[in-house]
Amino acid sequence: MQQEDKVTAGLLVIGDEILSGRTKDKNIGAIADHLTTIGIRLSEVRVVPDIEDEIVAAVNALRARYTYVFTTGGIGPTHDDITADSIAKAFGVTIDVDPRARALMQAACDARGVELTPARLRMARLPLGSQLVENAISIAPGFRIDNVIVMAGIPDIMRSMLEAVTPHLKTGAKMLSETIPLERPESQIADLFAAHQKRYPDVAMGSYPSLRDGKPATDLVLRCTDRAERGPRHAESGPRV
Amino acid sequence: MQQEDKVTAGLLVIGDEILSGRTKDKNIGAIADHLTTIGIRLSEVRVVPDIEDEIVAAVNALRARYTYVFTTGGIGPTHDDITADSIAKAFGVTIDVDPRARALMQAACDARGVELTPARLRMARLPLGSQLVENAISIAPGFRIDNVIVMAGIPDIMRSMLEAVTPHLKTGAKMLSETIPLERPESQIADLFAAHQKRYPDVAMGSYPSLRDGKPATDLVLRCTDRAERGPRHAESGPRV
Repeated sequence: MQQEDKVTAGLLVIGDEILSGRTKDKNIGAIADHLTTIGIRLSEVRVVPDIEDEIVAAVNALRARYTYVFTTGGIGPTHDDITADSIAKAFGVTIDVDPRARALMQAACDARGVELTPARLRMARLPLGSQLVENAISIAPGFRIDNVIVMAGIPDIMRSMLEAVTPHLKTGAKMLSETIPLERPESQIADLFAAHQKRYPDVAMGSYPSLRDGKPATDLVLRCTDRAERGPRHAESGPRV
Repeated sequence: MQQEDKVTAGLLVIGDEILSGRTKDKNIGAIADHLTTIGIRLSEVRVVPDIEDEIVAAVNALRARYTYVFTTGGIGPTHDDITADSIAKAFGVTIDVDPRARALMQAACDARGVELTPARLRMARLPLGSQLVENAISIAPGFRIDNVIVMAGIPDIMRSMLEAVTPHLKTGAKMLSETIPLERPESQIADLFAAHQKRYPDVAMGSYPSLRDGKPATDLVLRCTDRAERGPRHAESGPRV
């Protein structure tokens, strides 16, 4: 594997509503898909409540560890939206209304014929040193500070922000993946599969059991970053089960 | 709020397949719902890859912090199933085939007319000091060691194990919740809502925006553990928006 160009990411999902079960998260899967596609390896996800100390601790743990940190949630106009303040605290910088964000929101409000109220203006408050991450849907931007990208929790808006920031991200070798579906339980192929893993240590081999029509089934998934590993050798010596 | 009887939980989702996007997690939402219903507060979720050091570090961080830790994934028979070994390492105990798990699996195999192969027997390996967590679906049990409950990743089997362990859990005051749906953007109610939060600091008030048919909508959610807080005062002075 090409360790030298491995680009990693942590994801921080912020919100009481995910932890209470009220809202079922859809962003983890969408972000995982997107990052895998562009060659960034999602290496850890954390979900934390709307508590400043929790957000600060998680952001600081993740940003020290991964190339990028993405966050979702908590950037709206209400009192429980504390992500921007928490990020500022994590970086030890001040937070205030950002003139660029204000101008962007003023223009968006004008276009919609709505007023840029103090509540809306709260969404223009950004930690010092942030860059805007625009989106095509709502009036308020996300932002990026250093390696931390702060996005909305609403899936459509999150996706728009993720698309907007993508051209500015460095990416690594894409993970290639091949799936071999089997109509038998894992236990029947475990030994053979382990032998193959030993033979090809650079290919990450995972076995994913499920129930199909109540019967045990298994997907074998072979993953690596180097296309050469998937060449003739795979055709010759892939698992025969 | 009755802090003294607050029972908390951390959830650790183990699996490369969630981080790659290949599998979309359904367990976080299901476990969140279940724990909220029985009066346990899910306080943090982490998703980590199939890497022993990552699992050990996350389990140890979470078990020191919360009343319970639930884990999902990585307890099957294949080489990439390293959860049981990682839990043993986290607790600093040995791991071996557990006679109770072996007997349980032997009986299940006999009933199905299948052999208890070495691969299947791998699923009977439990950290020393574990108790079994049975399930009604597959032949292999989950287990519990101290405050850590280790469950399967397949949602149906996970749910069966969660049901099995539930009578043995201590639970706290249930979180009561009331939702007020609004057909307007958050920014229009932010100030009024913040004023209500100030007036009732013991009620956690959250505002959850969404797009309904492309138009901004907001759910206000009021949560507390004490039914008295939701009495006449709420009817008299709940948000009028």
